[in-house]
Order: sequence, then C-alpha cells, then structure tokens
Amino acid sequence: MGIPNLQLNAEGRLKHFLTIDGFSRELLTEILDVAESFTGASKDTVKKVPLLRGKVICNLFFETSPRTRTSFEVAAKRLSADVLNLEIDSSAATLLDTLRNLEAMHLDMFVVRHQDSGAAHFIARHAAPRVSVINAGDGRHSHPTQAMLDMLTIRHHKGDFTGLRIAIVGDILHSRVARSQILALNSLGTSEVRLIAPRTLLPADARTLGVHLFHDLEQGIRDVDAIIILPLRKEWMRGTLLPSEQEYSRLYGLTEEKLKAAKEDAIVMHPGPINRGVELDSQVADGPSSVILQQVSFGIAIRMAVMSMAMGSKGAARR
Amino acid sequence: MGIPNLQLNAEGRLKHFLTIDGFSRELLTEILDVAESFTGASKDTVKKVPLLRGKVICNLFFETSPRTRTSFEVAAKRLSADVLNLEIDSSAATLLDTLRNLEAMHLDMFVVRHQDSGAAHFIARHAAPRVSVINAGDGRHSHPTQAMLDMLTIRHHKGDFTGLRIAIVGDILHSRVARSQILALNSLGTSEVRLIAPRTLLPADARTLGVHLFHDLEQGIRDVDAIIILPLRKEWMRGTLLPSEQEYSRLYGLTEEKLKAAKEDAIVMHPGPINRGVELDSQVADGPSSVILQQVSFGIAIRMAVMSMAMGSKGAARR
Amino acid sequence: MGIPNLQLNAEGRLKHFLTIDGFSRELLTEILDVAESFTGASKDTVKKVPLLRGKVICNLFFETSPRTRTSFEVAAKRLSADVLNLEIDSSAATLLDTLRNLEAMHLDMFVVRHQDSGAAHFIARHAAPRVSVINAGDGRHSHPTQAMLDMLTIRHHKGDFTGLRIAIVGDILHSRVARSQILALNSLGTSEVRLIAPRTLLPADARTLGVHLFHDLEQGIRDVDAIIILPLRKEWMRGTLLPSEQEYSRLYGLTEEKLKAAKEDAIVMHPGPINRGVELDSQVADGPSSVILQQVSFGIAIRMAVMSMAMGSKGAARR
Repeated sequence: MGIPNLQLNAEGRLKHFLTIDGFSRELLTEILDVAESFTGASKDTVKKVPLLRGKVICNLFFETSPRTRTSFEVAAKRLSADVLNLEIDSSAATLLDTLRNLEAMHLDMFVVRHQDSGAAHFIARHAAPRVSVINAGDGRHSHPTQAMLDMLTIRHHKGDFTGLRIAIVGDILHSRVARSQILALNSLGTSEVRLIAPRTLLPADARTLGVHLFHDLEQGIRDVDAIIILPLRKEWMRGTLLPSEQEYSRLYGLTEEKLKAAKEDAIVMHPGPINRGVELDSQVADGPSSVILQQVSFGIAIRMAVMSMAMGSKGAARR
Repeated sequence: MGIPNLQLNAEGRLKHFLTIDGFSRELLTEILDVAESFTGASKDTVKKVPLLRGKVICNLFFETSPRTRTSFEVAAKRLSADVLNLEIDSSAATLLDTLRNLEAMHLDMFVVRHQDSGAAHFIARHAAPRVSVINAGDGRHSHPTQAMLDMLTIRHHKGDFTGLRIAIVGDILHSRVARSQILALNSLGTSEVRLIAPRTLLPADARTLGVHLFHDLEQGIRDVDAIIILPLRKEWMRGTLLPSEQEYSRLYGLTEEKLKAAKEDAIVMHPGPINRGVELDSQVADGPSSVILQQVSFGIAIRMAVMSMAMGSKGAARR
Repeated sequence: MGIPNLQLNAEGRLKHFLTIDGFSRELLTEILDVAESFTGASKDTVKKVPLLRGKVICNLFFETSPRTRTSFEVAAKRLSADVLNLEIDSSAATLLDTLRNLEAMHLDMFVVRHQDSGAAHFIARHAAPRVSVINAGDGRHSHPTQAMLDMLTIRHHKGDFTGLRIAIVGDILHSRVARSQILALNSLGTSEVRLIAPRTLLPADARTLGVHLFHDLEQGIRDVDAIIILPLRKEWMRGTLLPSEQEYSRLYGLTEEKLKAAKEDAIVMHPGPINRGVELDSQVADGPSSVILQQVSFGIAIRMAVMSMAMGSKGAARR
C-alpha cells in the first residue's frame, strides 16, 4: 500500500485494472467479494443495478475479440452504463491521439484490448484523472479480468485458496492469461501452483514465478484441486516449438482417462475457445468436472465488480 | 394444445417463436392483438414501454440482414431491453459452443438469423429453460415474424380472414416467407390462398399445402383482396429455373394494368427489398394500393408482441 | 424568418440542421446558448439529461467516419435517446427506399453522413413531417455541426464575434467544414474572416464569400484572434493541385515560429485528424495556444443542442 501503484488512487482504492501484479490479497479478495454480490442466490443470474447510470464506457478494441467484448458490454449494461463499441485499426492513428480525442468526448472508462504488451498501461498513464482504464488483454502481457473470473470460479467451488493445489496446462509461454493467473493464485495464498508444459512452451523465467514445473501431464495433475487448460493457438505453433498438434494432443491433451490422476472432485477450467480433441477432449469439456461455462458466467460478475470499483461504486455488497 | 410443442411452455403460452407450424388460430390472433396494442391510435407510431427493462436480448445473426436486424433492434429498445448485436461467422465455432457461451453471459433472448434451415429450432432445443429464441429467418424454412406482420397488415385493412382471397406471387420454391405465410393464412381461416408462379418456382409439395395453384398472373389475382409479391432473388435464378429476368417480369411482374384484375380495393404487399421493374412496377409499389411501408411499421409491433409474450409479458393489451 | 426555409418549422424553430446557410445570427446564437447550457461549470463534462428519452436516433452513415459517428452517438446517449448505428453501402439500395423503410420503423431522427453533396437535404425534403434530419457531412458541401462547435470554442475563449479577426488555413477548395465556418462566422458578425491557401486550393467563388484572401501564411495570420487549420487530405492532392506535401508544409504548415505573427493570445484550432508535421507542427498542436481537444468536447454539447432543439426540446437553458 505504501508503494505508489498506477492502479490505485491516493486512498489506495482501485482506479485502473491493468495487471494483477502488485495487488494485495486484500484487494483481490475485495474484488471477488464484490463480484459475488452481483451474482444471484442461484449463482446463475445477475441483476441490473443502477451503479453506473449516466456513465459512458468505451470498449476500445484494437484487436478483434467478440467474446471478451461481449462480456464487457453485458457487464457495463448490467451496471446501467451507456456503452460505446469502437474497433480501431491500430495503424490508423497514434494511440495517444485516439485516447485524447475520445477522452474529450467525456467518456468515463476505457476497456482496452490491444495486440501490444503495455498498451493499457500506456493509456492509463496518459489518461485524464477522471478516467479509468481496464485491461481486456494486451499482447502477451496480462489479462487480469480473465484471471480474476478464474479465481472466483475456484473460490466458488473450493473455498479458501490456502491448501489448494492448482495446475495450469499448456502454452504458458504465449499466454497473457497464465501470467495473470499465476500472480493471482500466489497473491491469494494458493499452496501450490504447477505449470505443465513442454520445455519449448515455458517462459525462460518460469522458475522465478513461484511455481512447480512439470513436463508430464499425469504427474503434474496428480492430486490437484483444479486444472486450468490453456488453448493451443495454432498460429504460434508452426515449425519450431512443437513437433505436431497430434503429438501435443497425445502428451498434453486432457482426456477422461488422464483426468483420473487428479483429485476426484477436481474441477477443469478453460478460458475458451476450446480446440476440442486437441488440448481438451469433449468428454471432459462437457463432463461433470468441467466448470467452463460457469467461468463465462462469473466473467460478467468480475467485470461488473472491477468496473464499479474503479468508478468508485463498491457494488451491492457495500451499499 | 394437447400436442407437445417446443414453442409453448407447460401452460401453453408462447416460449419460443420458431415457425407458424402448429400454432392455433387463437394464439396467432393473440399475437396480432398484442401487436395492435403497441401501435398508437394513429397506427403510425409505437411508444416505448418498460416491459423488458433489465432483460438482455441478443441479435445473433449468422447471415447479414441489416433490415431485419434493425427491426428487431428497434422493437427490443421500444420494450426497454438492452440489445447486443452479434454477427457471427458460422464457420468460426460450433453453433452449440456459441450458444452455451452466450447463455452463460446471462442473456435472456436470442433472435437468430441463419442460412441453414432448422438453426433456430436447434438453438431452442438446446437452450437453457430461462432463455427464449425467436427465429428471424432460417434457410428456406421459416420467417415467422415476417409472416405475422403480413397478417397484421391484412387484418388492419380487411378485418376478419374468413371470406378473403389472398394471392402469393413469385418464387415460392425458395421463399421461407411464403411457407410461413401459407401456414398463417390457413390457420387464421382465410377462404382461399392462391399461389401464382411458374412451375419451376413451386415446391414439389405445393398441392398439399391447402392452396390453389396458378401459372397465370391475371387469372390468379382475379378478385383477390390482397396480393403478396415475393422478391426475385437473382442468385437463385441462374441457368435452369427461369428463361430470363425479362421473361419473368413480362409474365409475373405486377403492373398497374394487370392489377386491374384484382378487387378494386385490393392491397399490394412486398417484404422488400423490391426489384423495381422486375417483380413489381414502381407505379404499383408507390401507388395507392401499396401497403408496403405499413408492413415495415407493423413489423416493429409484431416483433414487440412476440418478444414480450415469449418473456412472459403480455403487452399493453393485457396489462 | 419570412423566407421559407427547409430547416425551420412553421413557427421558425429548428426542424432540420443541414447547412449554416440562411440561419440568422439569433438562431445560431441560440444553438450556442443551448450547447453551453449542457456543459458543466467546469466546461469539461456534460451531464446525462432525459430530454430525448423514448426517441430513437439513427446514425445513417453512407461513408465511414468513426470520430463523427462516435460524437453523435455520445451526444444522443447523453440526451437519453436510443441510438441505432447503420453503415450503409450507398450502392445497395436507393436513398429513398432506404429512408422510407427506416422511417416506417418509427425512427425519430436521422444523422446523415454521405459522400454526395446534397444528400442530407434530399432526405430532409422527402422525410415524414415528424422526422428530423441532421447533416453530419455531405460531400464537399456542408458540415454544420463541426462549424458550430468551432463557433462555440471561439466564443468560449474570445467572447463576442464582433471585433474578431479569424483565419482559416489550408484546403478551402475541398472542405465542407470551411464553407460552413465562413457562413457561421459571417452570420455571427465576425469583423474579418481570412482565407489562407495557395490559389489552387481556393474555390473559384472565394472572392464572393465575404472574406479576405491571402496566399502567405504569416501575412494572413498577422494579428488574428483565432487560426483554424484544415487537414491536408492526401487523396485530393495527387498530381496537379500541389507541387508536393513538403512544399505545402514549408509554405502553409503552422509552426511555433510562424505562430508569433498572430496575436499573443490567439487560439489554434483543427477539426482533426491532424497530419502532424504537415499542416500543423506537434509543438503547436500540443502547445498552450491549441484548443483542439476542447473543440472535441464542445462537439458533444453542440450535437446535443441541435438534436434536442430539432426534436422540440430546448435544452437545460430553457427548461
């Protein structure tokens, strides 16, 4: 709290949400609590609340992502905000000129998706004081709302993080989600975070992340409480990194058979979209261990929580 | 009512609106009554009503159709719902994965447009119980809201369907609208439904549809109360089905001269967009018999009716 | 007021906003006053007001322009209207059929952007009496809301127009904005309006516009109160009109050095997007004389004013 943090205001409250890095366990827990307050008793619906009535939220997407955009749009509308969707060709104008112009239109919040790492930070650093910025994925760097919806899903099923063993499987190297997940899991006090991947898909600094490394799937998921499967993005796999998709699938694809190595009540997560039969078999994706669709549901609540907290409205739990 | 119908809930109330097939005269009449309650005294405006406040309606279009999408969007906003527009490349993901993901975002209704017959039924069959599905056109199969706005237009001008003679002219074979219109006209008790088309543009089962077939335009429209002109879709006409557009126009294009064969107060309808000078002359399209723009207006009221009924709100008439 | 004007209703109130041409100083001043009433005390925010609740405003763009579309969309939402964004390929259907169809959907206002001069007038002339039309730029003809936001910016900084010297620099020939600005400045009683451009970028009728012509930048801006820089649109510059971009920049690009010729407190304006280093140096664009981002802000207020006045709601100042 003493360290200046671009993401917090002078009172230590959430101002921007750019990365999990530097967030205390208390603040992450508060986000989870506020998000939970938006989910109904059935955990299956969210109600429309007037928290951001009169605010204009701009989905500023320099990279197409209908799923993420839709989730933020639904969350904003559930908070009664007005939403502006902008898909911008990043070559068309400088990031700063685009930001300055939109800011001048009295917009209150930017949800930024960009192919370059650091884009959301750049915008937050240059934004007017009254504006909040939410990172909806920047390059290989960070995707913090995705990580937080995963945390909410885990907490919903497993309770406290202390005592949990959680495995992340797949292309850690290129995954902005994995980076954010590892930071969040560690900050929330998870006993053991495991990364399972071929050596070529692990970042060089993997050993410094406070995790355990595995190159064998069944060994890695042994006795874990939750397995997070990462999608294999084919455009990154050509040539050198992997022998073949088939080979990857044989070694790291999660099947019902392999899943038996995990705890009996282990949950299986995936941020989507799933390459069925590659990193995840349909029997598992649609089976009783899968909580994949709940992740999508909790995504709305997490985005509502972060948006309302950044705008100074604490959500249902605090009113 | 005794037969299980995917479109009705346990109480026999509208749940999904996928096809006219299987709907009773009573239910179709109720839809028309509710729609009429949304039109103002002048029949020329609709008021904004708070019936679907807090609901999120998703226009899920796998096929581009700005006119239909706009009509549904206006109808949804008139009901105070939040609207999400999604244009989805149907090759990008499986229909079911797309549905599951969107459902998990707490959306309440899907308005589905798809190039494949049966797509809306498929979605309705797999949707969560709390979700309603409206068919906005699937392949050659069905376009029920278009048919119902035509029924509202006819009833507005001609009153009861009993005693009416109504002609549908043009490419019945490829028309999802014609199929829906025939079912609705018959269910509503129309005395005589006539199809007028060259043999090559009639479906093989035309004789079983409870209609009279004509291959001569003036003979077919003799003494009718309403004429529904179908657009000639050029992409379906290449090669074998028609000698030429000119030939079609000469034989089946409606002109002021030919229109004299119909009743003096006959109305002329067209779902749009019009190929002026092909299936319909501009003098008729813009003339005193034309009710084409009223059809567009009634489209909003019909879509409001179907949407509000499917969500369990009966509209102004019932409140 | 005695002359019939397509833009005014029978009571002389604003009905459409198509061009500055023919507007009295009183009406232009009223637009500025209403716009000012929407800006907060800090002049930096606008509040959401319920003036157009229940109205549907359609952004009907036949030409892509995300900045202008966004500004109108934010303005409409600030007035609590429902907004429909339509990008229409102008080759797809006749303008009149498109208009008739949308009108029939009970839309209340069209904001029209079109590559052809006169398109907004055409639509206004054929629109139903209850519909208002706002010109968001048509061909080389007119862009009246842009001109009015410039007027609001000038008045905000300089007060009354009487006694002001204002220079417009650049491609007057192709600029719909310049035409609208000259009309507005003259109607508002500006002492002296100067056009600064090479002969090839001045319209043939420039001498009849009630302006002073200059072909030398520093001479032209001597002792002016405000400088409006026009963007150099490269697609119009190929071949004959200009020797080269470098040559243009050397002669007409505004630098800090050249700016010294103007009054010390002169403001620098630009409608955007800026070609930095071509018509305007970054030191000036981002310097203390620049009011470019304020122009963007005032754009929201001007559009709110025009929209609410055209719909018969006079804005905060009159309530």
